[in-house]
Amino acid sequence: MGAVPPAFAFATSAIDGRARTGLITTAHGQIRTPAFMPVGTAATVKAMYPAQVKQLGADVVLGNTYHLMLRPGAERVARLGGLHQFMNWPHPILTDSGGFQVMSLSKLRKITEKGVTFQSHIDGARYELTPERSIEIQGLLGADIQMQLDECVRMPCSREEADRAMQLSLRWAERSKAAFGALPGQGLFGIVQGADVPELRIESARKLIDIGFHGYAVGGLAVGEPQDVMLAMLDVVTPILPADRPRYLMGVGTPDDLVESVRRGVDMFDCVMPTRAGRHGLAYTRHGKVNLKNARHAEDTRPLDEASPCEASNAWSRAYLHHLVKSGEILGMMLLTWNNLAYYQELMAGMRAAIAAGRLDDFIAGTKDGWERGEAAA
Amino acid sequence: MGAVPPAFAFATSAIDGRARTGLITTAHGQIRTPAFMPVGTAATVKAMYPAQVKQLGADVVLGNTYHLMLRPGAERVARLGGLHQFMNWPHPILTDSGGFQVMSLSKLRKITEKGVTFQSHIDGARYELTPERSIEIQGLLGADIQMQLDECVRMPCSREEADRAMQLSLRWAERSKAAFGALPGQGLFGIVQGADVPELRIESARKLIDIGFHGYAVGGLAVGEPQDVMLAMLDVVTPILPADRPRYLMGVGTPDDLVESVRRGVDMFDCVMPTRAGRHGLAYTRHGKVNLKNARHAEDTRPLDEASPCEASNAWSRAYLHHLVKSGEILGMMLLTWNNLAYYQELMAGMRAAIAAGRLDDFIAGTKDGWERGEAAA
Repeated sequence: MGAVPPAFAFATSAIDGRARTGLITTAHGQIRTPAFMPVGTAATVKAMYPAQVKQLGADVVLGNTYHLMLRPGAERVARLGGLHQFMNWPHPILTDSGGFQVMSLSKLRKITEKGVTFQSHIDGARYELTPERSIEIQGLLGADIQMQLDECVRMPCSREEADRAMQLSLRWAERSKAAFGALPGQGLFGIVQGADVPELRIESARKLIDIGFHGYAVGGLAVGEPQDVMLAMLDVVTPILPADRPRYLMGVGTPDDLVESVRRGVDMFDCVMPTRAGRHGLAYTRHGKVNLKNARHAEDTRPLDEASPCEASNAWSRAYLHHLVKSGEILGMMLLTWNNLAYYQELMAGMRAAIAAGRLDDFIAGTKDGWERGEAAA
Repeated sequence: MGAVPPAFAFATSAIDGRARTGLITTAHGQIRTPAFMPVGTAATVKAMYPAQVKQLGADVVLGNTYHLMLRPGAERVARLGGLHQFMNWPHPILTDSGGFQVMSLSKLRKITEKGVTFQSHIDGARYELTPERSIEIQGLLGADIQMQLDECVRMPCSREEADRAMQLSLRWAERSKAAFGALPGQGLFGIVQGADVPELRIESARKLIDIGFHGYAVGGLAVGEPQDVMLAMLDVVTPILPADRPRYLMGVGTPDDLVESVRRGVDMFDCVMPTRAGRHGLAYTRHGKVNLKNARHAEDTRPLDEASPCEASNAWSRAYLHHLVKSGEILGMMLLTWNNLAYYQELMAGMRAAIAAGRLDDFIAGTKDGWERGEAAA
């Protein structure tokens, strides 16, 4: 304590095609990119001890502003010393703006120029979230990387609707930046919107760059659209984004989404997929997905991946995991979440090393071959 | 592998009043007594990694024959290498006979001289459990310590009913011993029954000793009777039981039950209390119980016990634990189960050291003082 935190910074160390590897510096430490951020919605990466999350190679976790503002409340977290201390995670934290969950979880929401009002999905209490309040909350939480409030529309939607939401998000971006009173080592990211309309995405990106942010996110692309739409939008957007700022694809995705997006120059990801799937009996491995609910695993003495250095992947049989999942045992969720986050982090580490070696395409091809061998080959 | 397992044995190393400390030797290692056995009902100590359980000082866990015979099935566990390998717990395991859970969980059960038939609470399938089948199942699981099938009556009950069940349990004890084809290092325990009738308890104990077992359990005393009834039965039974065999009080209990029973010469315990309470927001500490559901913990920055060497007890605030419990987060169950098992093991280690030092009564008095300080003093 007492030491001056480093300034928020991003430096790339290797480029391979459009992909790059680098390092984000924050007040709470550095983030190796490309990075996958495990989601710690309610101040916990579900079913994991924080030390385990770090040990797997995760440098940063994501906290959800929507959940935390409702329970336990941002002012309470601040009184308790901030989110890092509260959840016992002394490493970098990124918080979203709350906007996405307001759209997907809350009730009776109403969007105006000022912001959004909504009812809590927990107790029905009314809340207001404006760009300024979102930044205030993220400051109270103490997030190292904070996100502007945006409006994320569901696709398919009309061009007019996409344009309206994108323009509103741009005005909210300006207000977010004005409200952002960062402590040293904290950064604010703008969010590119525009649904599946290339011209809107380009306009959004250019105007955000004019406003100026520490990093740029691509939003609205984890809302059910086909992967080719997502990749087409990345092909449009990432070439415009400044090379010296991190690029964050929000809410994505499957392992295949990750490799294809890194190939297109994305530096950061978050997704509930590995943790949520782990709580529902699904394992991600080098050999593709394994559905542990399936009875054919009932007497399979093989671990998920005997070559994995992760204990969750190598020390228990599929038969045992099947038993735990069938029995609804908490340990089943613990082991599969652990395995899945280990696999996601291993994949990111593999991509970072491949980019540094200038052979990302080979790495991705080999990785996809592994997935295609499927469950039976594992 | 290949080494000859040691013979099942028990040796006491220190006596303090009626209490003793010692060592049970089994095929899978030694058990320091007095010992508390965490309950691993369905081949998992709920919400704990097995390595954590061992690290807390637990030398042995309990597996439930009833649950395991229904799912995944004893023959399946045997095909998968036995319970130790299945659950990744290479240390001693005690299995109960299945009788208690048949009485408390199953449907349409019918007791005859031969055994008990019942319907699974999971899928309604019909099963038969005889003394011979129970021993066969426990052998398939590979338990280091196996229990005779008994009939455990609920109190209050008539003397006639208590006598009938006790006599049946004695006949089942003989059949269990005849069926027990132990591998080296495995032991079989008889179970003293007789409800709250001293004469029946004495008769049960004497006849079991005549049959001859590796250890003696006291059953039927965790079924809702007041503590003074339990302790009165221990006062009657433990003086009769052979000093050179371990004594196991089944299904007990609270921390206070443990210290009062150790004082009366009990060597082994099992109970779901620390694990179940941990999943329901209740913490056991040196300063008594802490109900984390209570809103008064919402901004309490103190850990459960800052002086505890256990991370679950010292590294997270009560405010955070309250938040996790209120939010139904799995990590809350993980941390409170961990804390509770740590406290139970710390209590047992404290009693073993106190007996070795000849000052158990002082230790118990000091421990009770701590509990009486209560939540506020913590």
